[in-house]
Amino acid sequence: MTGGNALDRALDLITEIPDFPEPGVLFRDLTPLFGDPSGFAQVIDALGEAVGDGVERLAAVEARGFVLAAALGYARGLGVALVRKPGKLPNVAGRVDYDLEYGTATLELPIGSVRPGERVAVVDDVLATGGTVAATTELLRTAGAEVTGVAVVLELTGLAGRARLGAVPVHALRSV
Amino acid sequence: MTGGNALDRALDLITEIPDFPEPGVLFRDLTPLFGDPSGFAQVIDALGEAVGDGVERLAAVEARGFVLAAALGYARGLGVALVRKPGKLPNVAGRVDYDLEYGTATLELPIGSVRPGERVAVVDDVLATGGTVAATTELLRTAGAEVTGVAVVLELTGLAGRARLGAVPVHALRSV
Repeated sequence: MTGGNALDRALDLITEIPDFPEPGVLFRDLTPLFGDPSGFAQVIDALGEAVGDGVERLAAVEARGFVLAAALGYARGLGVALVRKPGKLPNVAGRVDYDLEYGTATLELPIGSVRPGERVAVVDDVLATGGTVAATTELLRTAGAEVTGVAVVLELTGLAGRARLGAVPVHALRSV
Repeated sequence: MTGGNALDRALDLITEIPDFPEPGVLFRDLTPLFGDPSGFAQVIDALGEAVGDGVERLAAVEARGFVLAAALGYARGLGVALVRKPGKLPNVAGRVDYDLEYGTATLELPIGSVRPGERVAVVDDVLATGGTVAATTELLRTAGAEVTGVAVVLELTGLAGRARLGAVPVHALRSV
């Protein structure tokens, strides 16, 4: 799936690593994309288009989501709410446990990171089973935010993450 | 220490949390800064000046360093090498164990993330004992990179991290 335009070339930098971090899982490694200045800029700009207008804040999922949301926040003049793994935050507004493709996890939202009624878009690298993004959406809604959409670089359609997110619009730069 | 200019106002958004994550540690919480669009932009632009010209790549320390380095990489057209906690990377170029202010930790550098001879600046949020940044510098040098400098938002001078970094220039937006 090698495309002809600059965004396709950027997305082609993502590599596939079999059996990581668990046997049977095909890991998508964005390291080469983050290391490529023009590829990274292409992806950030495309995520900006995917997020659209009328968004008041971005939510980023630790840790690769931080990379994407921070650059996009800078590019678009938006603040970023960092959704974190447990034990990192001194003041927690909400906490959620959830299942992911391999194992289970917990995420926490810092106090004061979103305002009631605020229009927030979730940014992450890969949409797999949708567990992480669904948990993030739940955290944001519990804090009173309106989740306007989800923007990811890569969607793994075979894992049906989109179905788990209900009516929230999902924008993926590439679906495989 | 409230200053009159925009950068000082941005840095004033950082809050202090006593006894987190361990008793006796004064945690510096950058959450409000990351959530403030103009404060975040001020800090990213100031880090760009601190990093200076002639840098070919940024190295980011997981996880808050990702936020800063990614935005700066986008702003300056530089690729970012993500220095990660153990178990996250399928292909590791190097690994280092080190002591930090509270406890011990391990960092890993992905294969192919820096080139031999490349001029790399390290970006992180807080310079405390310098253990994390010194470990990162060691990883980068082992991979053949030239570490041109370290840029951090906040330096805790009482912990003498700067001394641990030897001849590497350290630029802090605020030293307390």
